[in-house]
Amino acid sequence: MSAYSQMSEKELRTEFGRLKEEYEKIQAMNLALDMSRGKPSSKQLDLSTGVLTAVYDASSAISSNGLDCRNYGVLDGIPEARELMAGLLGVQSDEVVVGGTSSLNLMFDAVSRAMTHGLPESDKPWSLCPDIKFLCPVPGYDRHFSITQHFGIKMIPVEMDENGPNMNKVEALVNNDPTIKGIWCVPKYSNPGGITYSNETVRRFARLNPAAPDFRIFWDNAYSIHDLYEDHQDHLENIMDVCKKYGKEDMVYIFGSTSKISFPGAGLAAIGASKRNIDHICKAMSVQTIGHNKLTQLAHVHFYKDFENMKEFMKKHAAILRPKFEMVLSTLERELKELGIASWVKPNGGYFISLNVMEGCARRTVELCANAGVKLTPAGATYPYGIDPTDSNIRIAPSFPPEEELKVATELLCLCVRMAALERLLARQ
Amino acid sequence: MSAYSQMSEKELRTEFGRLKEEYEKIQAMNLALDMSRGKPSSKQLDLSTGVLTAVYDASSAISSNGLDCRNYGVLDGIPEARELMAGLLGVQSDEVVVGGTSSLNLMFDAVSRAMTHGLPESDKPWSLCPDIKFLCPVPGYDRHFSITQHFGIKMIPVEMDENGPNMNKVEALVNNDPTIKGIWCVPKYSNPGGITYSNETVRRFARLNPAAPDFRIFWDNAYSIHDLYEDHQDHLENIMDVCKKYGKEDMVYIFGSTSKISFPGAGLAAIGASKRNIDHICKAMSVQTIGHNKLTQLAHVHFYKDFENMKEFMKKHAAILRPKFEMVLSTLERELKELGIASWVKPNGGYFISLNVMEGCARRTVELCANAGVKLTPAGATYPYGIDPTDSNIRIAPSFPPEEELKVATELLCLCVRMAALERLLARQ
Repeated sequence: MSAYSQMSEKELRTEFGRLKEEYEKIQAMNLALDMSRGKPSSKQLDLSTGVLTAVYDASSAISSNGLDCRNYGVLDGIPEARELMAGLLGVQSDEVVVGGTSSLNLMFDAVSRAMTHGLPESDKPWSLCPDIKFLCPVPGYDRHFSITQHFGIKMIPVEMDENGPNMNKVEALVNNDPTIKGIWCVPKYSNPGGITYSNETVRRFARLNPAAPDFRIFWDNAYSIHDLYEDHQDHLENIMDVCKKYGKEDMVYIFGSTSKISFPGAGLAAIGASKRNIDHICKAMSVQTIGHNKLTQLAHVHFYKDFENMKEFMKKHAAILRPKFEMVLSTLERELKELGIASWVKPNGGYFISLNVMEGCARRTVELCANAGVKLTPAGATYPYGIDPTDSNIRIAPSFPPEEELKVATELLCLCVRMAALERLLARQ
Repeated sequence: MSAYSQMSEKELRTEFGRLKEEYEKIQAMNLALDMSRGKPSSKQLDLSTGVLTAVYDASSAISSNGLDCRNYGVLDGIPEARELMAGLLGVQSDEVVVGGTSSLNLMFDAVSRAMTHGLPESDKPWSLCPDIKFLCPVPGYDRHFSITQHFGIKMIPVEMDENGPNMNKVEALVNNDPTIKGIWCVPKYSNPGGITYSNETVRRFARLNPAAPDFRIFWDNAYSIHDLYEDHQDHLENIMDVCKKYGKEDMVYIFGSTSKISFPGAGLAAIGASKRNIDHICKAMSVQTIGHNKLTQLAHVHFYKDFENMKEFMKKHAAILRPKFEMVLSTLERELKELGIASWVKPNGGYFISLNVMEGCARRTVELCANAGVKLTPAGATYPYGIDPTDSNIRIAPSFPPEEELKVATELLCLCVRMAALERLLARQ
């Protein structure tokens, strides 16, 4: 194989014809594969079967402080669940509220509360501010962008590099523009880039001097213990610790969940924040709900024991995920590396591989895959408003399909990356 | 015993002295009893122990349509859970969304959505309307009032009688004032009155012609199958059926939960509404959350099977609750009836007995009880802003305490009702 840029038009045409033949053969197989979302596989879910029966009768439903978890009571979570989730979020146990099953819901509610009531530092509810904005490191998580879009908050993309968001740009914007109220971050094994914010990036976040007094960092630490390897794991500085050093602990909301530890949409979600923020959150929550499912909280603590044990447990997930990631990466390497039409980063954890194809080719690649029965995350989804300005980013989610299917899907993906690139190169001739 | 109104000052003083002595004896017992909230007792919770282990492994976690409930997917509830909750709410299964564990949360979110985005018929979000109001049948449920207060919605009390809210007043207000956007209703075994809206009341609700196009009836049918007796049960007309007859099905949101069927705060909550409303709700929910706990949904269906079976199951709750209600009622009868200083309604279901004491005596009665170790719902809580204009309503929740404790607490309550009345009568002399 040689780089497409070195090929003559004739060579490109021959290559395209050959690939098209291959593609049609695969189309005839009537595949129905899905690499679109970061879903754990059944094998991973089986690891936590014990959670299902960890609370099984009246006596096993009693919390450490003697509360019957089957009955009413407790807004912010039972003590042992707050302790467990505090470990996951890197905060103290009185700096955490255990919510329902979805950390996204906690993020939505945090924005919604700010819209209707403002935050402690606000002079008015965000909904009464004529113009409000969030920074969105890109590529990023589509569901974050959906929340801000839903509330009519303008989104400003900020490019990511291997150290995190471009902090010169973040500082210039946040420290000078009082209409910027927040920033979405997935600081470890980022979705989809798989990169982890450097120590310097985290410290620069903690040293921000926002023009808006009610600015918040939405720190979605969704993959905090989701390492793929034991010997090379990314390190993320503890944002709360660093913020406290600069007296900025009110500036950050930290989110996390057990969605990819126990069961997606049936585990525990939590928000970590300064005590001042927690008090503000609980005040509204006391109106909003009777409380979240304490039986689920207790079952998780019974099964995972404590945070250290939970980290140890994550090795079992890694053992299942690692071969899938390696297979996708080695296929990309084999099929694409020498062609000079795509790039990717090898992540040490998380749920995604971010593939950058030739400019203007992401949509077409995803379309070609779909037409051959392989579903990918829609191109553009990793950008605010679904608009990838260079139409080049594709998010690969290797976790769910069985290895054999993943192999077929990845090979098809590579084929489609090449075809889309060739179509574009030939159109230029 | 004779009516206090017939007694001379001297007789009243003697009576007070005697009661005070009794009260001081009880004070010396250092009681710590709680009749403040409608919590099921442990015995009731034990009835549903089977829910805890109804989903116990991978194969038992598969829904009727083949979905693995341990994994992501499904926003509005698995089909069999929608079917079950549709029965409870009296709607079709495509007219229901199964939410988390708290129907209050669904009500809060419904109001919050209207505040930030408006409803399908709104010309703008409610938060942009200079003046909005809800009608609040009184006495009513304090947590309803907290939601409207939280969002700065003005509350207008409407008196209840034995047929429900005063419908002349409801019609006059709703049909003429476009700033009235909603009304809170507990239509069956109302909290706290224990009365059920008459057929005529329900029909008049369905025939409302609101001045506000985005007016909603918040129909919190929390006690729909919570009967105490098999032979005399209240009948509540199906509001959705009646609304449909008048083409008004978009006007009502119906709420319910299994909080007092399975486990409070760990069961299923649901909202029932027209398909147009459901679509509107799901559109926002798709941004708000990944989805609610499908394992809890499936466990409930496995255990309760279907709605008919769930109704049958409620007889077990009734058998535990009935003696408690009867004991409270017979104590009230024995200790208060002839004195002419209090009145109450004997409910056929629900969780409360609403006691009306002499005007100006509710707060003092609750205070006297608290000072002798018996906690009651704060006086005034059953009115918007916590203000009972005649200071006469007290909500009794007989469900949680064991019978022996309930007996002591109710006798103390009667004593305090009498003392508070005597204090007032003597102050007038």
